[in-house]
Amino acid sequence: MNSVAPQKKRPTIIALDAMGGDYAPDEIVMGAAAVAGPSLRILLAGRAAEIERHLTQVPEPRRGHIRIVDAPEVIGFDEEPAKAVRSKENSSLVAACSEVAAGRADAVVSAGNTGAAMAAAMLKLRRIRGLKRPGLCAVIPTPGRPTLFIDVGANSQVRPVHLLEFANMASIFAEDVLDVGNPSVGLVSIGEEPIKGDELVLEAHRLMAESPGLNFYGNVEGRDIVRNVVDVVVTDGFTGNVCLKLMESTSSLIVEEVKKAAGRSLMARVGGLLLKKELAAFKKSIDPEEFGGAYLLGVRGLVVICHGNSSRRAIASALRYAGRAAEQNLTSKLEQRLAAIGPAHGAQEA
Amino acid sequence: MNSVAPQKKRPTIIALDAMGGDYAPDEIVMGAAAVAGPSLRILLAGRAAEIERHLTQVPEPRRGHIRIVDAPEVIGFDEEPAKAVRSKENSSLVAACSEVAAGRADAVVSAGNTGAAMAAAMLKLRRIRGLKRPGLCAVIPTPGRPTLFIDVGANSQVRPVHLLEFANMASIFAEDVLDVGNPSVGLVSIGEEPIKGDELVLEAHRLMAESPGLNFYGNVEGRDIVRNVVDVVVTDGFTGNVCLKLMESTSSLIVEEVKKAAGRSLMARVGGLLLKKELAAFKKSIDPEEFGGAYLLGVRGLVVICHGNSSRRAIASALRYAGRAAEQNLTSKLEQRLAAIGPAHGAQEA
Repeated sequence: MNSVAPQKKRPTIIALDAMGGDYAPDEIVMGAAAVAGPSLRILLAGRAAEIERHLTQVPEPRRGHIRIVDAPEVIGFDEEPAKAVRSKENSSLVAACSEVAAGRADAVVSAGNTGAAMAAAMLKLRRIRGLKRPGLCAVIPTPGRPTLFIDVGANSQVRPVHLLEFANMASIFAEDVLDVGNPSVGLVSIGEEPIKGDELVLEAHRLMAESPGLNFYGNVEGRDIVRNVVDVVVTDGFTGNVCLKLMESTSSLIVEEVKKAAGRSLMARVGGLLLKKELAAFKKSIDPEEFGGAYLLGVRGLVVICHGNSSRRAIASALRYAGRAAEQNLTSKLEQRLAAIGPAHGAQEA
Repeated sequence: MNSVAPQKKRPTIIALDAMGGDYAPDEIVMGAAAVAGPSLRILLAGRAAEIERHLTQVPEPRRGHIRIVDAPEVIGFDEEPAKAVRSKENSSLVAACSEVAAGRADAVVSAGNTGAAMAAAMLKLRRIRGLKRPGLCAVIPTPGRPTLFIDVGANSQVRPVHLLEFANMASIFAEDVLDVGNPSVGLVSIGEEPIKGDELVLEAHRLMAESPGLNFYGNVEGRDIVRNVVDVVVTDGFTGNVCLKLMESTSSLIVEEVKKAAGRSLMARVGGLLLKKELAAFKKSIDPEEFGGAYLLGVRGLVVICHGNSSRRAIASALRYAGRAAEQNLTSKLEQRLAAIGPAHGAQEA
């Protein structure tokens, strides 16, 4: 086992892709301005002149905790991720990752092209020691308390040991970054019994049940994902990606339809107005911006991938959680946990 | 290719599992009573004395179109499906399937144990000619028009050719039973481009794109499932089962939360009351009972698997659609389509 010496001499520094997102750079810069301070410094990667113009709105002393890393290129939402990352070394996204790779920052936040953010992370940042596959972990804002959902798209084809890694990484993240005590972990299947599911799930179930330190609940079904049955829901990146998008789409569809219903008659319009305050409180309670974005766990230095339409509020949340992860030495803790999974884990091929 | 002679000499007969479901036999018998007539006769399989008692409430001439098949055993929701089906030949479910197997009925409807219904169908009814795998097809009551979603749990592990079969079977069902003209078909993946997804999806995409008579749209993402992007959504039974349960759970959660919000203050309560009528209309528009249940496509004689909590309304819908399928000679049409998929399909092993 490797003991990792704590190296917290400098303040936490987050590299932020200033040009990624529908509202970049304005909302991105304003998100940085909302959280920058002596213990959380921000590196804004992007077109220096453009960023500088937005930064004039940010007063001291906050302004003093933000630095610019000039990166004139931008990766668009329509670009082929791997190709864009390889050909645009000077893009805001790749530059942000390079800051972490060079040890000048602790984590990356981007609201740009999701595929490109993953590709840049894989290309520029090393995997943490002992890990086979990083996993993308979303935070689902279920009423009450959040649910972590991993993997939502980093790996469309996985083996059982990868699911075991996801379970352990998301547990650490839940505990250390989101303050969930002894997080319970469920494995997505088509029935609660351990004998339900395909070969992947059957074997992953066995591995998780035997994993030391993992609070394994057992299988969960599709309905349980949004019902706070467990704190961490584990599945492959194909199922996770489809489910995450389905969940977002279903909830926004229902909210839209309720709104439409509230416009259909005068009485209903009055009713809708009277309900407005309570419905707004509910909408806020399931607002995905609360948790910033999805967290790529397993690369050295966390990468937070925000929704393209992130506002300054989402960016600020992402920066705060990324800062929290760095303060908690997430990378070292993940390495320690992976080492503790034991030789059975390490012995399997990557 | 096999030409199947039409054999519509007798009226359509549906075998109904009278003892399956949370509200059996009362709601089941009343569902039968709602639709029984000279062109749609019902066989009620179950405990004769108990059914008889409920049938006394059904007036002539409807009563005359309902017959009882005595089957004293019942398969419970907690029983292990395959075992229960094998050991309970005289259960209402197995008896209903046997009526179809013997040619005395055209289709089966059950609101009992889903796994047992599938097991009974596989055991008692033959697969249609040329088919490798039956698929369970749900009808999602999306606003506007329904979306067919296949497979929602019959096969947790599939090969590309099975997805091709699902696509073709659900298209025929949409067209002939639900009156959807030239139904478009989407394949669930994690990106719209044909190059996105795992090996299963890539190969299934290729097969569907080349399949004669299939109106293939291409890949769809999780968000598209509820957005009427296509008429038929195809996926493996693992992803489909997880998604269906997630969708139902998410929409009922949001409706519950909106209700809770409408109880939080006097003003909100008044607002909720004023909105009640419009919200009820919306709830009705997404009511899963409208389409009865999920349809097991690919066995000789359709099997409709209803929700355990089905009311008489759901049972009546299921019986009507099952009747419609029989009138339309669904089995022959499925066979013809499978033959038309061509030798590439037939040449692959089962």
